[in-house]
Amino acid sequence: MAVLVQKFGGSSVADAGRIRAVANRVAAAVRRGDQVAVVVSAMGDTTDELLELAAAVNPAPPGRELDALLASGEQVSAALVSMALAAQGIRAVSLCGWQAGIHTDRCHRKASILHVDPRRVREELAAGKVAVVAGFQGLADTQDVTTLGRGGSDMTAVALACALEAAACEIYSDVEGVYTADPRLEPAARKLSHLSYEEMLEMASLGAQVLQGRAVEYAMQHGVRIHARSTFSEGPGTMIEEAREMAVGAVVSGVAHDAKVAKICLLEVPDRPGIAEQLFSALATRQVNVDMIIQSVNRQQVNDLCFTVSWEDLPAAREVSEAVAAQLGATGVTWDDQVAKVSVVGAGMAANPGVAATLFGALAREGINIEMISTSEIKISCLIRAAEVQRAVRAVHRAFDLGR
Amino acid sequence: MAVLVQKFGGSSVADAGRIRAVANRVAAAVRRGDQVAVVVSAMGDTTDELLELAAAVNPAPPGRELDALLASGEQVSAALVSMALAAQGIRAVSLCGWQAGIHTDRCHRKASILHVDPRRVREELAAGKVAVVAGFQGLADTQDVTTLGRGGSDMTAVALACALEAAACEIYSDVEGVYTADPRLEPAARKLSHLSYEEMLEMASLGAQVLQGRAVEYAMQHGVRIHARSTFSEGPGTMIEEAREMAVGAVVSGVAHDAKVAKICLLEVPDRPGIAEQLFSALATRQVNVDMIIQSVNRQQVNDLCFTVSWEDLPAAREVSEAVAAQLGATGVTWDDQVAKVSVVGAGMAANPGVAATLFGALAREGINIEMISTSEIKISCLIRAAEVQRAVRAVHRAFDLGR
Repeated sequence: MAVLVQKFGGSSVADAGRIRAVANRVAAAVRRGDQVAVVVSAMGDTTDELLELAAAVNPAPPGRELDALLASGEQVSAALVSMALAAQGIRAVSLCGWQAGIHTDRCHRKASILHVDPRRVREELAAGKVAVVAGFQGLADTQDVTTLGRGGSDMTAVALACALEAAACEIYSDVEGVYTADPRLEPAARKLSHLSYEEMLEMASLGAQVLQGRAVEYAMQHGVRIHARSTFSEGPGTMIEEAREMAVGAVVSGVAHDAKVAKICLLEVPDRPGIAEQLFSALATRQVNVDMIIQSVNRQQVNDLCFTVSWEDLPAAREVSEAVAAQLGATGVTWDDQVAKVSVVGAGMAANPGVAATLFGALAREGINIEMISTSEIKISCLIRAAEVQRAVRAVHRAFDLGR
Repeated sequence: MAVLVQKFGGSSVADAGRIRAVANRVAAAVRRGDQVAVVVSAMGDTTDELLELAAAVNPAPPGRELDALLASGEQVSAALVSMALAAQGIRAVSLCGWQAGIHTDRCHRKASILHVDPRRVREELAAGKVAVVAGFQGLADTQDVTTLGRGGSDMTAVALACALEAAACEIYSDVEGVYTADPRLEPAARKLSHLSYEEMLEMASLGAQVLQGRAVEYAMQHGVRIHARSTFSEGPGTMIEEAREMAVGAVVSGVAHDAKVAKICLLEVPDRPGIAEQLFSALATRQVNVDMIIQSVNRQQVNDLCFTVSWEDLPAAREVSEAVAAQLGATGVTWDDQVAKVSVVGAGMAANPGVAATLFGALAREGINIEMISTSEIKISCLIRAAEVQRAVRAVHRAFDLGR
């Protein structure tokens, strides 16, 4: 009897009808003889609505209380999915993070899972029940409820799949899987049947809205195979697994983009050792994730220091940058949230030196200016104007013949 | 430094503005130097909305899952009240039932508090914080979340006040206190400054919507003084305490009414010993609370057996009655939900034999027919037609000169 983890995102449980559809899907797996642990996100826009309520009573609510508030969303959907299963004659119990043994650190709003104690879930599965676990949440050693940050339900699913030694971890959403580009921007985009963890990681961090980055990282470290698929169709999705288990990969697997990024520049920073460390450790203390970094030499002993962050982190990043700039004697701080990142990702890239040239050429032919570049073993990213994202994605998709 | 428990009902936390007002009220007590534990209900109609959602996925949802669902409501309001306090510079932590040490039995939907372990709440108070506890919920030894039934937040407040040895337990709602009659029915109704536990118990069970019966019972057993007062005004409300602490009570303190009752009759039940036990133990097994009971002798060896229940318990009560009637050989079961109960309550009643006569006389002069009567040391109740409630309450209020 195989253990299966199935995770359903917010749009999959957005109303009573969809919750019944999710229950059908789970029930089918149970009837096939699987032991199923389900992980659910909050219904539709619940999390945003709760954040609005919070803002109405306190413009800067404490993280601990926000977590206590937000955790209610997944609790509601877990209970409703359990009820919908019961209506089909499938025995099910909903479990909050603290009941499901999801232990995290104390970092409210962005907690990390430290370990999963799967005893309760195992007991329920062994008793012939479906365990419906509230995603996105856990318990710190202070006995306080924590949340894992946006997309944290993916993390719950993967960590639970690992702890249960599940045969598979199915992540359901409203898309069919991972595409060579966002189909809303590039109609010729093609669904990928397989993708390595590394490629998915780049795709996730680069704005492909399918899977949360930390969840993919955890899956990679612990060898959990993820099947990203659609709640609303029966077809196979994209299997995310170790590269060596895949057929020889394409040089470039896909084009990712992220328009919710902002660029911050510290102007004319004196060129002394330790400057960058001072800035980026201050940003790290405030939990700001920095993405691209460029240090450009302006003139002797004075540099411009630019970096990108997500929109979410922009207010904190500006605050830190202005404080650090003043300390360092920089002449000013500029910021710009009308930028976007377009990237090509592919496990076969490192061995193919022509990728960068093809990418830059495709953008140049469209007259798109590149403001920043960053590279890794398996991706190249360019920062461009936000208004040019669609043209850029389509040009690059075409240049690498990804629609074939 | 006195410990104070303040409980706010659903209408007191119905929206962001009211939550801020509650925070003002709590903050004032903190600034006076009290250690404050707050207990909150779910916002406004949250509980009903969650029940609707549940019904949409399962017409008969399992109790365990309903409890997991409903408990989210108080969790939300507790977190929001904590945030609103933080906005005023008052440190506060929200605690769910399981965090606040509210241990209950396993009876989902109507759980009883077995004991309160106040360690976490005490720690938070000692650290100079307000503890904002989600009312209405607790934790069974199975590690499952339970709820205490409608009005259960009062129960949480009283049990917590007892465990904390609080100086007072203030129960805030949208009414000023306990009145001699429902002011919506009788404009001449007068607020009572003091009431004994016993009188309040009769008032609560008889439909005065101020305090939950079980909470009053618990307060009586443990000597917790309750101050029932209004969230929206500063004036004193009604103090509920031991009769011996009060000035000599009036013969009749007030008129209570309850229109959400139903009468069920088993017709022509054979007159054998053990019949009543069989019926009422079957009802008890289904958690049906039976109120008035009348057994009337029809003719030799055949009785009619009538009883009343709340509307909430009517479906279960009918089901049980029909099953038992069939077993017993009764000729049928009738039910009627267009009845109401009107009662006079007063600690001085037992020593004043004229009360019943005055009550029956007042109803008779209005031409109101009495269908059932039940009495106790401190109350007399009459079952009448629901349509006649207002006339009955006003006539009785006048007959006992309660508006003086």
